[in-house]
Amino acid sequence: MLTAARALLVREGPTAVTHQRVARLAGVGRATVYRHWTRPEQLLLDAMVSVDLPFFRDPVAPLRRWLREQLQVVAYELALPEVAAITATMLQSVGADNQLTQRRDGFVAVVTDRVFTALTLAATNGELDLTADPRDVTALLIGPILYRISMQTGPVSDDLIDRIVDSVGTWHSSA
Amino acid sequence: MLTAARALLVREGPTAVTHQRVARLAGVGRATVYRHWTRPEQLLLDAMVSVDLPFFRDPVAPLRRWLREQLQVVAYELALPEVAAITATMLQSVGADNQLTQRRDGFVAVVTDRVFTALTLAATNGELDLTADPRDVTALLIGPILYRISMQTGPVSDDLIDRIVDSVGTWHSSA
Repeated sequence: MLTAARALLVREGPTAVTHQRVARLAGVGRATVYRHWTRPEQLLLDAMVSVDLPFFRDPVAPLRRWLREQLQVVAYELALPEVAAITATMLQSVGADNQLTQRRDGFVAVVTDRVFTALTLAATNGELDLTADPRDVTALLIGPILYRISMQTGPVSDDLIDRIVDSVGTWHSSA
Repeated sequence: MLTAARALLVREGPTAVTHQRVARLAGVGRATVYRHWTRPEQLLLDAMVSVDLPFFRDPVAPLRRWLREQLQVVAYELALPEVAAITATMLQSVGADNQLTQRRDGFVAVVTDRVFTALTLAATNGELDLTADPRDVTALLIGPILYRISMQTGPVSDDLIDRIVDSVGTWHSSA
C-alpha cells in the first residue's frame, strides 16, 4: 500500500494519494487502507516521508535562480489542500512525543539539510555571503511562505520570493 | 464569561484562560462555559480576538529596537502550548469558510496593520528604507518565528531576530 501511495505521489502529486486510489493500485480493499491510515493526511504524510521529495533537490548554479524556483514549488505545494492538512496535523503535534512528531522532525531535517547544501554551494561559488546557521536559513526561507499561505491565505508573489531569497545573505551575481 | 476570559488573559496571560477559571470568575458553572466553547483553544481564541493584544502596540523610536523586543514577545507567546493550540486550529481551518476563518482573518489584519504603522513611522523617521508591502512585511517578520517554533520546535535566537528585522528593508541607525 505504501508503495502504491508513493507511486501516486510521485506520478500525480499529493491530490492523487487517496484511500480509494491507493486501494485500487495496491489491489486491496478500501477498508484495509483505512485500517492502516484513519485519515487522508496520515496516508499522505507516510507517503511523503518515504519518498524522495521534489523540494530543494539537485541544486544547480546560478543558485539564486534555482532557489527562487524551488520556493515557487514550495509555495505551490503548501497551498494544496492535501498538503495544508498535513501542515496543520504536524503543527497540532507540537509538544506531543509521538510517531507524528518523529516524522515531522525527519522531514524538517531533510529540508534543512538540502537547503544548506545548496547555499553552501552558492557560497563556494562566490555567489553568496552566507553567515546564518542552517536552521535559521530554512526558517527565513520557508517561514514567510508558510505564514502567507496558512495565515494570510494569499498567493506568494515574485516580489515576496525575491525578498525572502535576499534575507539569507548577500548575493553577488544576479541571475 | 467573555469578560472573565479577557480579564484572565490580560492579567495572567494565555495559560490562565481555562474553563475552570473562567467559570469561577464569571460566577457560572463549568458546564455553562463548556456549552459555549467545547475546546480550550476556542475559548482562548475568542478572548484573544476581543482584547487589545500586547503585540506590536504603541511603537516607540528607535523602531529597530522596539521591533526586536516585539518579536521576542511574539516568539515567547507562540511557544506557549495554549497559543500553539490556537495556531494549529487556525491552520486547520485553511480553505474552510466559517467563523474561525473570519476570526483568524481579523487577527491577521490587526497584526499587519500595527506592524505597518510602526514601520511607516520608522520610514518617516529616516530609520528605515521601506519598500515592501504591508502583508509581505508581516510574513517576513512572523513567518520565520512561526516555522522555528512550530516546525523546527526550537528557541528563537537573538541572531535570528536580527536577521528577520533586517529582511524587511535597510535600517540606517542601529539601536
